[in-house]
Amino acid sequence: MKSYQTLTLAHDNGVLWLTLNRPDQLNAFTVQMARELIDVFGAINDDDAVRVVIVTGAGRAFCAGMDLTREGNVFGLDESLSPTLTDLEGDKFDAPAIVNGFRDLGGQVAMAILACRKPVIAAINGPAVGIGATMTLSMDIRIASDKARIGFVFGRVGIVPEACSTWLLPKLVGISKALEWLYRADVFDAEEGCEGGLIHSVVPADQLRAAAEKMARSFIDDKSAVSAALIRQMIYRSAGQPDPLLPHKIESLGMFHASQRDGKEGVAAFLERRPPQFKGKPSTDMPAFYPWW
Amino acid sequence: MKSYQTLTLAHDNGVLWLTLNRPDQLNAFTVQMARELIDVFGAINDDDAVRVVIVTGAGRAFCAGMDLTREGNVFGLDESLSPTLTDLEGDKFDAPAIVNGFRDLGGQVAMAILACRKPVIAAINGPAVGIGATMTLSMDIRIASDKARIGFVFGRVGIVPEACSTWLLPKLVGISKALEWLYRADVFDAEEGCEGGLIHSVVPADQLRAAAEKMARSFIDDKSAVSAALIRQMIYRSAGQPDPLLPHKIESLGMFHASQRDGKEGVAAFLERRPPQFKGKPSTDMPAFYPWW
Amino acid sequence: MKSYQTLTLAHDNGVLWLTLNRPDQLNAFTVQMARELIDVFGAINDDDAVRVVIVTGAGRAFCAGMDLTREGNVFGLDESLSPTLTDLEGDKFDAPAIVNGFRDLGGQVAMAILACRKPVIAAINGPAVGIGATMTLSMDIRIASDKARIGFVFGRVGIVPEACSTWLLPKLVGISKALEWLYRADVFDAEEGCEGGLIHSVVPADQLRAAAEKMARSFIDDKSAVSAALIRQMIYRSAGQPDPLLPHKIESLGMFHASQRDGKEGVAAFLERRPPQFKGKPSTDMPAFYPWW
Repeated sequence: MKSYQTLTLAHDNGVLWLTLNRPDQLNAFTVQMARELIDVFGAINDDDAVRVVIVTGAGRAFCAGMDLTREGNVFGLDESLSPTLTDLEGDKFDAPAIVNGFRDLGGQVAMAILACRKPVIAAINGPAVGIGATMTLSMDIRIASDKARIGFVFGRVGIVPEACSTWLLPKLVGISKALEWLYRADVFDAEEGCEGGLIHSVVPADQLRAAAEKMARSFIDDKSAVSAALIRQMIYRSAGQPDPLLPHKIESLGMFHASQRDGKEGVAAFLERRPPQFKGKPSTDMPAFYPWW
Repeated sequence: MKSYQTLTLAHDNGVLWLTLNRPDQLNAFTVQMARELIDVFGAINDDDAVRVVIVTGAGRAFCAGMDLTREGNVFGLDESLSPTLTDLEGDKFDAPAIVNGFRDLGGQVAMAILACRKPVIAAINGPAVGIGATMTLSMDIRIASDKARIGFVFGRVGIVPEACSTWLLPKLVGISKALEWLYRADVFDAEEGCEGGLIHSVVPADQLRAAAEKMARSFIDDKSAVSAALIRQMIYRSAGQPDPLLPHKIESLGMFHASQRDGKEGVAAFLERRPPQFKGKPSTDMPAFYPWW
Repeated sequence: MKSYQTLTLAHDNGVLWLTLNRPDQLNAFTVQMARELIDVFGAINDDDAVRVVIVTGAGRAFCAGMDLTREGNVFGLDESLSPTLTDLEGDKFDAPAIVNGFRDLGGQVAMAILACRKPVIAAINGPAVGIGATMTLSMDIRIASDKARIGFVFGRVGIVPEACSTWLLPKLVGISKALEWLYRADVFDAEEGCEGGLIHSVVPADQLRAAAEKMARSFIDDKSAVSAALIRQMIYRSAGQPDPLLPHKIESLGMFHASQRDGKEGVAAFLERRPPQFKGKPSTDMPAFYPWW
């Protein structure tokens, strides 16, 4: 993979550590970081050596939020495709060109993470505030250091939640807790995040990397990478369906697909009482119906 | 605001205490109460001085359910718009005029509460049974006295759950707990409600008002009222979307809207290290795309 | 009811014990078992004497998963309606005939259980692995023995989750826990299932039947069978709706339906302070708008 200005990558035997790396700015989010996150999650999909991604922050913060000290884009809006701001006023707000053109960069990052074919774990090492908090919602599991702090502070800044968080946060912690945290707009500790269902577990700071690594390994050994890719996409796309019929069809097609590939090896290994040797690759062996949405 | 027969209002510096006030009947729900609740929640949207609503009950009950002692409407059905009962039989059940005309009054109250642009807290001071329980589901957070009792007793009366509770209850406590409580149709204590995820916290009876007040204040100080309004509507409308795309678009438009208004002040205040002075008003400053559903 | 090869039935005063009965094979799932489960859940809908169903396993297991030792159908795919396997390759994957024809048998069982008009309790007495775990997701409540073990092991076999589990599991335990268990693909104990929200309660093995029976009885005594049937269908069909409007309409129609039938008796019994004597039958007294999806 190429190198980035705001991110560092370290690959260790299937686990990719992706570190937000602007430690002097508490890894504050910039347009550059957004572009690089979108790029790297695309590259991860093409790299079959990467089985699990762990996202963490360099230095003492995870991500302190949007970099408000920079000129322009403090609201994280992608103006590159958009009309002039004047055009967005009043009754033109719903025009298709505007709706399609003016897009929250945090949301674009979230969509790229949601499209990832590998499990994604957030190892929250310190403050995760604003986009620093909402970007973790599109990651599958959040493990936190006891030094982590979480803040959905949008109401304190007079803005609105982003990064697909109005879709993801109530799915993760329920409507009531999502509203409470968003209304309070304060910064709370990891323990409250854990009690509220956002955080999987809280560990001492010096054990965070080991805890995330241990979980990542449990997703790799003797597991099919293609199964993991399909599981991830099926869960995010089926969870919110109003009816079981589409999920049932996708599962049926997915099972047939698997039955011709890694599933053959899986059943053979089970019957022969040996570890499976899966050959399927998420880069090339996803079913023809993927993506189905 | 005007005065009501079944409700009392008390406004204290941004917090509106809305008290169900038929204490001799344990605040049992009537057609009159339904009409007044719908009216007051509309009025609240027009009154920018109200920042948070707390709903509680006068006397020892929150709301003991539908007033079954009154003639007519014991099932909470709004017959004013409806055809004669005879027309509802048999295969005419799906006729558009019937579907649109005959509407559960509890559900109409729930829709009015869901449309509120201010956070709504239920301070459950005693028994909340039937519509007394389900009306709290469209409020954002439920704080209970240790004297509170909850009962989704519809199956015991041979009727069905209402007030949008078949949509709201599984979103709040999950499908399995929702079904258990509805099948049991009994009255359980606040602690079980808390363990099941329905109740935010249980406090001694004499501390209920202070606990609700404290939470309400945490939603007001240094927070944007327009942000709160958008957060509330975005969470309820995005949580159940099958796909992240529409929430992403709404968030993008909401962020642009905010960036031209309270967000400017929020960022300026942050950079100047001073408390923000938000000017936005939910009565007049909601974005042109609201409501978007 | 007729007798089955893979199931045993025992009816006790409203409670039907349905036992998976291939104890020498740890009740492993076969095509025959799938066909019989679909058949029996249809028959249960026609038998008003059955008020609640409890599903458990004979011997020491609940269900050890798909019977991988048998020829064919180890992937649980229903080939009876499907084209030849060759036709399923490549870009023909989305053809309507294929999508409609080739269906996961576990999903067909789940759809039959979801269509049941009676509460369904899983009494998980031992290992529930693969389809043995996912088949319980379409049951309303899972009570487990301390000897129960749960495993969503699909990724370990190179296949994908089925039985509508990509729709049901995140609704029951949230997206994050669903992904963790599916990625790990291991077998975990009942206590972890309980902490994760999948299992209602864990009891000593010798108390499992009594605990399930006690819960079942609490759903029957003084409760309307038609209310229970409507509650079940309304919750499963409303929970995932993106908008409260359709649930509100269904509730309104359901309430009107009830007001002409069991609701009359329920209100009368309440006013006369006597136990209700409901006469409604789920086999014949469901409203004309049911099923509405």
